[in-house]
Amino acid sequence: MLVSKKISEYSKRSSWIRKMFEEGARLKSIHGTENVYDFSLGNPDLDPPKVAIDTMAEIAGDPGTSHGYMPNAGYTDVRERIAKFVSGVQGVDLNAEDIIMSCGAGGGLNVVLKTITDTGDEIMAIAPYFVEYRFYAENHGGILVCSESNNEFLPDAENIERNISARTKAIILNSPNNPTGRVYSEDTLLEIKDVLSNYQHILVISDEPYRKLVYDDLEVPSILRTFPNSIVVTSASKELSLAGERIGYIAVGPAVQDKKELIEGLILSTRILGFVNAPALMQRVLAQCIDTSVDIDVYKRRRDLFVSILNEMGLEYAPPEGAFYLFVKSPVPDDIEFTKALQKERILAVPGSGFGKKGYVRFAYCTDEETIAGAKEGIRKAVFSFNRKS
Amino acid sequence: MLVSKKISEYSKRSSWIRKMFEEGARLKSIHGTENVYDFSLGNPDLDPPKVAIDTMAEIAGDPGTSHGYMPNAGYTDVRERIAKFVSGVQGVDLNAEDIIMSCGAGGGLNVVLKTITDTGDEIMAIAPYFVEYRFYAENHGGILVCSESNNEFLPDAENIERNISARTKAIILNSPNNPTGRVYSEDTLLEIKDVLSNYQHILVISDEPYRKLVYDDLEVPSILRTFPNSIVVTSASKELSLAGERIGYIAVGPAVQDKKELIEGLILSTRILGFVNAPALMQRVLAQCIDTSVDIDVYKRRRDLFVSILNEMGLEYAPPEGAFYLFVKSPVPDDIEFTKALQKERILAVPGSGFGKKGYVRFAYCTDEETIAGAKEGIRKAVFSFNRKS
Repeated sequence: MLVSKKISEYSKRSSWIRKMFEEGARLKSIHGTENVYDFSLGNPDLDPPKVAIDTMAEIAGDPGTSHGYMPNAGYTDVRERIAKFVSGVQGVDLNAEDIIMSCGAGGGLNVVLKTITDTGDEIMAIAPYFVEYRFYAENHGGILVCSESNNEFLPDAENIERNISARTKAIILNSPNNPTGRVYSEDTLLEIKDVLSNYQHILVISDEPYRKLVYDDLEVPSILRTFPNSIVVTSASKELSLAGERIGYIAVGPAVQDKKELIEGLILSTRILGFVNAPALMQRVLAQCIDTSVDIDVYKRRRDLFVSILNEMGLEYAPPEGAFYLFVKSPVPDDIEFTKALQKERILAVPGSGFGKKGYVRFAYCTDEETIAGAKEGIRKAVFSFNRKS
Repeated sequence: MLVSKKISEYSKRSSWIRKMFEEGARLKSIHGTENVYDFSLGNPDLDPPKVAIDTMAEIAGDPGTSHGYMPNAGYTDVRERIAKFVSGVQGVDLNAEDIIMSCGAGGGLNVVLKTITDTGDEIMAIAPYFVEYRFYAENHGGILVCSESNNEFLPDAENIERNISARTKAIILNSPNNPTGRVYSEDTLLEIKDVLSNYQHILVISDEPYRKLVYDDLEVPSILRTFPNSIVVTSASKELSLAGERIGYIAVGPAVQDKKELIEGLILSTRILGFVNAPALMQRVLAQCIDTSVDIDVYKRRRDLFVSILNEMGLEYAPPEGAFYLFVKSPVPDDIEFTKALQKERILAVPGSGFGKKGYVRFAYCTDEETIAGAKEGIRKAVFSFNRKS
């Protein structure tokens, strides 16, 4: 067999997700895309801000723009601009050397895990978690260890401590969270900090591509200021609606352990994993647009509309404070059954099982308000179908 | 230690290369960039073709352009266009499904190796070889096995056969070659094919980002037509001078083994390695400019000038048929000693040791003719310094 055992196994394991997407595509081909209510993908549907498009066109059209290799970490002036921005947001003092440009947050996370993971090392994630974390850890010989969140969908400090072993190398925090939409409060972070004070070698990796996507004037507390041994990975995918352009960065905390070696390693990993460097043009676009974002109010209105529907149906859900996800309790214990009932009504959502949390489904509201409003009756029917049976 | 053992070891191992680059930077800061003759990097200095810049500006400036996620393999219309192009060039019949867009050839090679490599599998390369191959193989648990080229710097079929083991999974061919500039002839490929006819499970991976960069009307023979079990990985880095934009593709041969599973695996690896997809905008640029290239004659003139200098000095070199490298025999057995003598004359080149071939140095002629002409006296002095000693 040409394909490796691991990849074959992954392909088989993920086949039910593929079947779900195939079913979605089938529904769209029968009923027309406009008659399918697709909440399955976290693919921002908003246009990038006008300033991002204008900047992109200007840089692209300038014959003086270089499109060649630059240092593997990225352009120095871009890294300077981003260091200044992150310093302001996180309340720390970073320099250009602390920033490594990456191919999105997915690329950045792989670079970080490649750099720190010895075979058999454990990487902790808080369940429910972004489904790719398991692959990212295993890519580099690591093992993903999950720590259940508490019943408010926030990290549980006791669970975290219980899951720490001699092989724990890092813990990934993801706030605003995919799939729950929760934002970790300062208090929550301090509880984790308290646990980690006994395990200072454990690196805190903050995966925070939704940082600017929060509602109701909520503040996302600083990871780099809270945890001495920490690193931030993020991207312009959601905040600037540039997910397909693969641009993001890694920001290394000022008090991280073995800082010089770590930064050298991150740059080396960027090179040898074949990223080589983050896409050149988009580095410049990000630097010039780092202060801006898509219109968050659009997502807020969608959230409010979706929440009003869920309330009307009597469905429970994690309090949605950020990102563009609603994590909703299935009216029956089997979330796949609920997902199938929704599909019958031409509504696409992702079972919580895929994120390590059974009994829930995730709705991504990267769709216009008409689609959300249009799904209302279908959701009602799907929920009602179980009530009738029970 | 936060950094993994492997990455620490890599960092140490590559420190002499870094020292060389640091020495180059030091020379530039003292003497001015214009007084240092830098032939160390294969970073195309030509501007991208005007049509590529115009296309990029047009697509970037169009507010209707999507910058979101697309299928992990890339845009279907882009893959269709590239399949048509590759079909013509390689003399095979490919469809959109056979093309997976990648983050440059470096990204593509990692995706291929991730997909096929079980821990302990051997990946063969022909020495001298592109220095990153070893990292790419080891990233995914593979072992790089080198097969010495013959004294014409072409793959040696007997050496290849001798190096095949029960664990050999793939062989990487790289023509036009980095670092030698050689182009493998049809006869050379047929000799390899003859050997591989007894090992049909071995995948031929053709790394061919320099395909369009050949001189004297030479033809680069088709890998996909020659080897049934083969795959092509390439990029727009050199042919369109877009190295920093990280755009390339994988083309799967029509008769490759386990084709369906392989393509599925390549798409999955693209996703889980964190590439997710090749940069969106550059996919569209590549599709529209796939028929064009930078002006090859510029490189040809530089090659001819550089060769005339080497001839005048009585230096031997591999016949430079393509790419933009000259692989030159050091006048002393120790290539690092020669590199240092060149550095004294403010000339930067890379020792062959870095490519698995001692006694040679690589000059990259991604520099204007003035720089090449300007280096003449320095090369003479460096060579003469050894003649005097001997």
